[in-house]
Formats: sequence, C-alpha cells, structure tokens
Amino acid sequence: MLAVVIFSGGQDSTTCLGWALNRFKDVKTITFGYGQRHEIEIAQAKKIADILGVESEFFEIDIFKKLQNSSLLESSSDINKPHPLNSSLPSSYVPNRNALMFTIAHAYAQKIGAKNLITGVCESDYSGYPDCQEDFVLSLENSLNLGSKENIKFHYPLMKLNKAETFKLALEEGVLELVIKESHTCYEGNRDRFFEWGFGCGKCPACLLRMRGWGEFKNLLDS
Amino acid sequence: MLAVVIFSGGQDSTTCLGWALNRFKDVKTITFGYGQRHEIEIAQAKKIADILGVESEFFEIDIFKKLQNSSLLESSSDINKPHPLNSSLPSSYVPNRNALMFTIAHAYAQKIGAKNLITGVCESDYSGYPDCQEDFVLSLENSLNLGSKENIKFHYPLMKLNKAETFKLALEEGVLELVIKESHTCYEGNRDRFFEWGFGCGKCPACLLRMRGWGEFKNLLDS
Repeated sequence: MLAVVIFSGGQDSTTCLGWALNRFKDVKTITFGYGQRHEIEIAQAKKIADILGVESEFFEIDIFKKLQNSSLLESSSDINKPHPLNSSLPSSYVPNRNALMFTIAHAYAQKIGAKNLITGVCESDYSGYPDCQEDFVLSLENSLNLGSKENIKFHYPLMKLNKAETFKLALEEGVLELVIKESHTCYEGNRDRFFEWGFGCGKCPACLLRMRGWGEFKNLLDS
Repeated sequence: MLAVVIFSGGQDSTTCLGWALNRFKDVKTITFGYGQRHEIEIAQAKKIADILGVESEFFEIDIFKKLQNSSLLESSSDINKPHPLNSSLPSSYVPNRNALMFTIAHAYAQKIGAKNLITGVCESDYSGYPDCQEDFVLSLENSLNLGSKENIKFHYPLMKLNKAETFKLALEEGVLELVIKESHTCYEGNRDRFFEWGFGCGKCPACLLRMRGWGEFKNLLDS
C-alpha cells in the first residue's frame, strides 16, 4: 500500500509521517515551497525524510506569491497583524492554500498510483482557518475523486488533537525525538536556541504554541 | 459586479468572455501557462483580451509538467495516443488540471473581490474527461467556498452545448467574428491556413471538431 504524506518538516507533519510509516508499506513525502521566508523549513523536511529513509518529492508553487500578501511570505510585514483581505483571519492566511496543496498532492498520488494521502491538517489549533476544517477536507476529497474517477483516501490523524496530544501521538508513533530535534516550527526561522520542546526563537506565536503544548504534554504524562 | 473568466484564448473561452461581458459590469480574464507547446495560444488570449479592452492576468503553472506525461505538454509525443496512466483517457488528460485551474482562479477571485467565475468547461465534447462534468464543477465550487468562507459562483454556459451550439452562442453574444479570426484551437499551433471557421492545420482532432461544429452550425442557421 502506497501512501503520500504532505510534509512541511514541522511538528505536525513529522508526527503524521511517523503515523504513516507505522500503517503503510511504502510511504513517500511531498513538500511544497511557496516563497517561505525560511529555507530552513524545506531543509529540515528533506533531512527528516532522509533520516527515515523516505523518498521525498518537492514542488515549488510560485503562484502563492501572486495570490496574496500574506506576511508568511513577506519578510517585511508583521505576522501578527490581521489579514488585509479579511480582518477575521490572521495575516498568515493564504487563499485556497490547502486546497491547492491537496489538489497537487492528489494529482501526484494519481501519478504514482498511491491510494492514500496523509495531511497534518488540524482544526483545533487553527479555528480561524476555514481550510483546516474537517468538513472542507472531506468535501475536497470527494470533489477531487469525482473529477478524476479515483478513490484516494485522505487521512488527517491530527484533526481533533491539540499540540499536547500531537506530542503524545509522536511518542506513540516512535518519532518524538525526531520531532523535538529536527522538526521546524518557528516563524522566525530560528534554529540557534534549543529548548526541551525543540529549536526556535521561543517568542513567536508558533514557538509559544509548541512550548505550551509541550508543557501540557508533560502534565498529561504525569497524570 | 466583478467577474473572472478563465481564458485560454480558444473558441470556448472566447465565447464565454463574450457571454460574461454581456452580463457583468467588470470582467477580468485569467490565463494559465503550463508548458503548452504553442505560445501562440497565450499570445492569442492576450490579443483577444486587448481587443475587448479586458484586463488580463497570467499565471504560469510549471507543476503540470511534473505531474504527468501528457502529449499536450510534450512536443515529441503523439496527441492521439491513449493516456499512459489510464487507457480509457486520452493522452492529453492532465490529472486534476481543471481542479488546479479552478482553485487558483477561485483564490484570485478572492484576492480581487470577484463573486463570479466563468469557465468554458463543457461535458458534451469531452465525455472522457471526468473533470469536465457538471457534478464535479458543482462539487468543487462547494468545496472551495467551504474552505474559504466565500460565496463565489461558478458559471459554465457551454456545459451542455456542442461545438455547433457554441458557435451559435458566440453569434448571439456578438463575438462570432472574434472567435473565427482570433481564437486559437489547433493542437499543432498552426495559424498559417485560414478556413471559414478559423485558423488551423485542418487535420488535428481539435481542428476537425471545430470544422464539424462549424458545418453543423451553418445547418442550424439554414434550418
């Protein structure tokens, strides 16, 4: 059974990769570059795939840059500002980002004959992002299969988990050490400082989320 | 009312552009480049948009090249062969091509605040292409709106028309002359020979379809 993991090299998708390796015989990763401010993310994704002996594919999507003005793609702007198009969304929101990545990954799965597609999409931590909701993912899975006469199944093991539960899943799937040491989350691209939960600046929203999740995870273990 | 027309510069999308201009106050086109063998298609798309005074946007999608081995993108292979991945599909089939173009166009519509998206997708002429079926387009429209909390409507005025009826629609919408003289269809990229139905080689499947449609259209007019 061949499976494709959509893989950013972050905590979530590294946990998903561990999850997939314990369930599918043959696993490949697909990583998307979209003018990320930090090449470090892509470098860590490649490193983790190599450590796990998994074949990785890389797709550059330049078009994201033309589609929005998100601060995630522009080093000059502030990540924490509201989105210029819709003030109820964070500035890091990219229109149809997940739809695009899922559509390309689904096409890649068709190309290599994979019937399973794993994504770390998670509605718990990103309630402001409509393209992280389960009903959207199920709907898109159905649309893409309809448009290709395929039956490729989307798996999203983190959908209902918070960051603490994701650390717990990483432990259960045998990739916790890899998550801590190699997965990259920090918005600032910082890998100089090491905390017990991983590398990062320790101050940006992504680091704070991971740090809090780690604290809760340790409480979970103790209880 | 702002509308975006997905625009290849072919007969179908030129007819759609005429249709849209008669219904929406402000119309923009979006054209996709994906390693087409014939730059002439993109040049004609730009030319038609300029003639009609319509603002055009161009998106290059390199990733199509990585996603398949379609003969439409490879000058050396035969367009009429079956598809290497699925013998029930023509070799010109690109996995998730329409899903990708619709997803990017939908994101672009979000960016510019357009609530209408027009595509020349047509199930009559391409019964072998599952991503040209109405149920797929409706399903994807729903998915993309769900994933973005948007309400962008897809319009597909050619869905149930054959090529003769598309010529008739072009006449009704006032763009028949433009369709004949400027829209490009020929797979061979030929614009040296002129027939009464347009420029082309007159021999490839696309030219034959257009030629037959023209004959039937003239019979429609006479009857």
